Amino acid sequence: MIIIMEKGATEEQIEAVIEKLIGLDFNVHRSTGAVHTVLGAVGPSELVDPDEFKVMPGVMECYRVMTPYQRAARAARPEGTRIRLAGEREGEVELGGTRVVLMAGPGSVEGEEQLFRCAELAARGGAKLFRAGGLRAHLSPASLTGPDADSLRLMKRAASTFGMFLVGEVVEADSVGIVEEHADVLLVGSRNMQNYPLLRAAGRARRPVLLKRAPAATLQELLVSADMILDAGNPDVILCERGVRTYGSYTKNTLDVTAIPALHKLSHLPVMADPCRAAGRRDIAPALALAALAAGADGLLLDVHPDPSKVLAEGAQSLEPEQFLELARQLRSLAAALGRSF
Amino acid sequence: MIIIMEKGATEEQIEAVIEKLIGLDFNVHRSTGAVHTVLGAVGPSELVDPDEFKVMPGVMECYRVMTPYQRAARAARPEGTRIRLAGEREGEVELGGTRVVLMAGPGSVEGEEQLFRCAELAARGGAKLFRAGGLRAHLSPASLTGPDADSLRLMKRAASTFGMFLVGEVVEADSVGIVEEHADVLLVGSRNMQNYPLLRAAGRARRPVLLKRAPAATLQELLVSADMILDAGNPDVILCERGVRTYGSYTKNTLDVTAIPALHKLSHLPVMADPCRAAGRRDIAPALALAALAAGADGLLLDVHPDPSKVLAEGAQSLEPEQFLELARQLRSLAAALGRSF
Amino acid sequence: MIIIMEKGATEEQIEAVIEKLIGLDFNVHRSTGAVHTVLGAVGPSELVDPDEFKVMPGVMECYRVMTPYQRAARAARPEGTRIRLAGEREGEVELGGTRVVLMAGPGSVEGEEQLFRCAELAARGGAKLFRAGGLRAHLSPASLTGPDADSLRLMKRAASTFGMFLVGEVVEADSVGIVEEHADVLLVGSRNMQNYPLLRAAGRARRPVLLKRAPAATLQELLVSADMILDAGNPDVILCERGVRTYGSYTKNTLDVTAIPALHKLSHLPVMADPCRAAGRRDIAPALALAALAAGADGLLLDVHPDPSKVLAEGAQSLEPEQFLELARQLRSLAAALGRSF
Amino acid sequence: MIIIMEKGATEEQIEAVIEKLIGLDFNVHRSTGAVHTVLGAVGPSELVDPDEFKVMPGVMECYRVMTPYQRAARAARPEGTRIRLAGEREGEVELGGTRVVLMAGPGSVEGEEQLFRCAELAARGGAKLFRAGGLRAHLSPASLTGPDADSLRLMKRAASTFGMFLVGEVVEADSVGIVEEHADVLLVGSRNMQNYPLLRAAGRARRPVLLKRAPAATLQELLVSADMILDAGNPDVILCERGVRTYGSYTKNTLDVTAIPALHKLSHLPVMADPCRAAGRRDIAPALALAALAAGADGLLLDVHPDPSKVLAEGAQSLEPEQFLELARQLRSLAAALGRSF
Repeated sequence: MIIIMEKGATEEQIEAVIEKLIGLDFNVHRSTGAVHTVLGAVGPSELVDPDEFKVMPGVMECYRVMTPYQRAARAARPEGTRIRLAGEREGEVELGGTRVVLMAGPGSVEGEEQLFRCAELAARGGAKLFRAGGLRAHLSPASLTGPDADSLRLMKRAASTFGMFLVGEVVEADSVGIVEEHADVLLVGSRNMQNYPLLRAAGRARRPVLLKRAPAATLQELLVSADMILDAGNPDVILCERGVRTYGSYTKNTLDVTAIPALHKLSHLPVMADPCRAAGRRDIAPALALAALAAGADGLLLDVHPDPSKVLAEGAQSLEPEQFLELARQLRSLAAALGRSF
Repeated sequence: MIIIMEKGATEEQIEAVIEKLIGLDFNVHRSTGAVHTVLGAVGPSELVDPDEFKVMPGVMECYRVMTPYQRAARAARPEGTRIRLAGEREGEVELGGTRVVLMAGPGSVEGEEQLFRCAELAARGGAKLFRAGGLRAHLSPASLTGPDADSLRLMKRAASTFGMFLVGEVVEADSVGIVEEHADVLLVGSRNMQNYPLLRAAGRARRPVLLKRAPAATLQELLVSADMILDAGNPDVILCERGVRTYGSYTKNTLDVTAIPALHKLSHLPVMADPCRAAGRRDIAPALALAALAAGADGLLLDVHPDPSKVLAEGAQSLEPEQFLELARQLRSLAAALGRSF
Repeated sequence: MIIIMEKGATEEQIEAVIEKLIGLDFNVHRSTGAVHTVLGAVGPSELVDPDEFKVMPGVMECYRVMTPYQRAARAARPEGTRIRLAGEREGEVELGGTRVVLMAGPGSVEGEEQLFRCAELAARGGAKLFRAGGLRAHLSPASLTGPDADSLRLMKRAASTFGMFLVGEVVEADSVGIVEEHADVLLVGSRNMQNYPLLRAAGRARRPVLLKRAPAATLQELLVSADMILDAGNPDVILCERGVRTYGSYTKNTLDVTAIPALHKLSHLPVMADPCRAAGRRDIAPALALAALAAGADGLLLDVHPDPSKVLAEGAQSLEPEQFLELARQLRSLAAALGRSF
Repeated sequence: MIIIMEKGATEEQIEAVIEKLIGLDFNVHRSTGAVHTVLGAVGPSELVDPDEFKVMPGVMECYRVMTPYQRAARAARPEGTRIRLAGEREGEVELGGTRVVLMAGPGSVEGEEQLFRCAELAARGGAKLFRAGGLRAHLSPASLTGPDADSLRLMKRAASTFGMFLVGEVVEADSVGIVEEHADVLLVGSRNMQNYPLLRAAGRARRPVLLKRAPAATLQELLVSADMILDAGNPDVILCERGVRTYGSYTKNTLDVTAIPALHKLSHLPVMADPCRAAGRRDIAPALALAALAAGADGLLLDVHPDPSKVLAEGAQSLEPEQFLELARQLRSLAAALGRSF
């Protein structure tokens, strides 16, 4: 920990800080500059809140040297994490390598026929992962229902019929088990990024976990949540940027493209992006999808629907079939230009 | 729903919007202005996402006339909601009336002695509600443990020994039952503001629920979450502002004092504020507490500790005993000046 | 400057940083922790951008020890700055002392009669400073016109007729001279907080300068702008918080009440608040005015108008006469409760 | 204007709104829904602030139908604006067409030799526009000096020696004339986006104006500022996204890639992006440059320097020579993949 004393801090104030640090088992090094005295403290930083020192008289700033996440940090695996999925019908997919991985599917499930048409469409666009949301809860949250075995089985069948792996959302610690039984990847949505019981349950699962960033989470908070999953024993976490909340109102959220190269520097985990949910409108989403790929995303999530304008809710963010297939072509050509495959 | 067409929108584009509205069972009123055509649509607005129209060609803007929350809206109870607690040793407390209610307690529980000293201190400052956090999870999230019957019993004893009601945090739907058994008020923390299974469970409980706003939640999102609790049958929800995330970095969060009068206009539910958690530092928190009261808060949450500078984590936001008692005096005098009691 | 190397930084990377620091005339102290190597560097920090080190390989973080502002810092005048105005008809006013100073006036000038009615109203409410905006520029910016001698003379007459000092806005370096001739205080609006030529011109003026924070400025940026005025020779700068831009939409901006105690800690300059412009709506502004005073503001700016609902633009944020006088009463009683006068 | 009355608004309240609208020369259409009464009002919307209605009793929401900018709106020129520059040595450049235009140069000028080396480097990377900043003001704002004829002449010579046009920053209305004499494009920096006297002066100039978005400006505010330039007679405005202020701290600002497609929809003006200033660090800027191009930017601004790590200030955001040339190659290949040239 590094503590910078204010200009004009008294000797007494400095001593009080040193004493407190020593009482907390830190070794303290003091360096007296022309203007500021700076204290470097080595000790149990992970247990001490730097804010505790900020409120002491005479203290100007206090920084913790250690990041609050360890396992998710780049230094823990400098070469990067690659996550492999393999299946008989699905073949092999690797997340975190040179291939860009496409995940696609409908925002919500309306029925079996729609589900299979969505899956066929997703596969035609090159998706390797299929994601079918539940009936989502924005407009009428009470109607949100957790996953049941029947619908999971159906989704799995839709996915594997077209050679894709299934991604299933988990919203409660209790239901991780049933989702894990049918889905190949577990998705923790942005509303649950700090649902600690759920993160721990996902950490005990044997499936890779796609962890979506909450709309106001810092990169550090996202990585602390990832750490919790890693810490519980699951080494396969995929980070996903899906838009941050800003003062802008043209789109639902503001896709934080900067997070993609930043997370690659801070962490060894693969990074995906969700341009459809970030934009909330299908006329803007394709530009964001191309941007996220250009910025270095390892994969993309896209909402697709055979006829999104007929959907009552969550349709605005879903791509139309032609639009999706055209975007897939552009993504392929962009990936090639960047020396990656798709 | 109101749809404003772009300047220069073609007749075809207008017709397409009208047709879609009619297909969704809306009655449409068209008014053609000098520059813009405006469509007013009456129908099942709660089922339709206005964004779906924003992406149609020729559409400039689309507004939903109805708020997505109903039960929490001021119109549902124009006179305001008052929540009463009564106990043998605790007497009576009313939230939402002219008296300002103080809730206080330690950020985390370190042991029985500390707990009782905190409770005594809280009561001396005039607190009617006692809140004792668990060991919180910022620095080392894995150490967060759920509530167990023993510690709840202990907390309840500490609270009632000094004539206060107990507030207990719930973090999982499963554990609402056990908390409800011992605590008088259930607290849903800001990280769980959109944990829908938990909200529904709290809605089925027979205790008032204190619902904390997430640091990037809009007022509307907070009220949608409150609606979900009300909708499940629990009429007693207390809203709590605890700081929003901005670009500022001097304090942990930025207390959104504006939210207090705004929530009073939008909703009939009582509104509390949590200045300690918002500031994250005890040198700034008292000014925010006074500000929140002046802005019309029905109650305040304060973190207190007999010796906060000795605490390893979460201490920086806890008030010192003298500071707390002095603040309580100022709050009392401020309340009187505003024609309220304390 | 303090530079923290990443876990796993190589000796070469550390050496490169040290070499660069030495080349920039820093003295470097190296301390090697169990996990991180930390370099403390004493030297010409004010000339060096810490970001330059952040991009070097192996560097995790870099902090500058010095604040980028000096003269505005609390340490430069620990006892605080008090700004005195004295006039024959106006009496004496002191900003930064125990008295709360009220500044009031119309958002825009519509004519001589309205101006005098506004001034009378302001004075009845206890205002010591009168502020009359020009015709403001939000809705039709082209109509903004600079100050001319005639209207300044008129405003001055309105102010002094009712025993108040005049506050006049400056928008161009060139027109500082003419405003200074008639007004007692110069106002630099939030849109000009970083208009450097204007700040320098205000710094050469012999009148106190009220400097409004831009809606997305950090406290540090505000203080750097204040420094520029102080540096040009003008010792009398008043800081003014007027709302920051957040994702909230119920009010025009979000009044950052936290900034008031924070600026008092960081700086010796008086701090005012502008709740009307922050809220943009007169039904919310009074609660914010009370909150700002409770948080420790040295003064308040209020927009008043004899009949604001008749105003085409900028009327929504102006208080109605009765509302203003009632608020003034509440502010007086609040100030007394806090041990201050008004 | 559209006004939505609250559920439960009284007939009196509705009448008061109608009366006020009629008094302001609006024609009012009333439609009474099951829950809400909605008033559509056609009239002088551009003169009336919708907030004035929001504060009336019984009003829930009020929307203005017209955008506050007209000339910059897409509808004013649906085919899009193309801005052409032509010179003997520089050839022809078109902004807003299929070719991606590169603008490059040093963040600050250190001397003649550095200037020419930067220009040579910029030209090698394919830049058609050369931009040389003054000594910038972040760290020591007092040192910012306006442009003088000598340095402008020098910059112009550097630009044209290598076949590029010169971009010169204007910071005061008074100095627009001299910059215009030597530079081919005028740049209005983000700190001056709402410096109205400067915008009007730029609007009277005969050179295209590159208008940078302020770090907290909405798209609407940017377009209002553009309107002011267009309105003063200058038809050639180029919009530039350069990062918005968010709670993120890894980079200086957060590049708002979404703004690029959004501005293309809202406006006919060309849109550039400034990834170096947004990121503030050269290790992240290239990923953002690629993302901005993929999102549809008409051009890019890049900071380059022959040896940025030697620069005391503003160096961290400048690309190193090899990095710049490599990025130029990637941009070229990306542009080709997207069916554009470079």
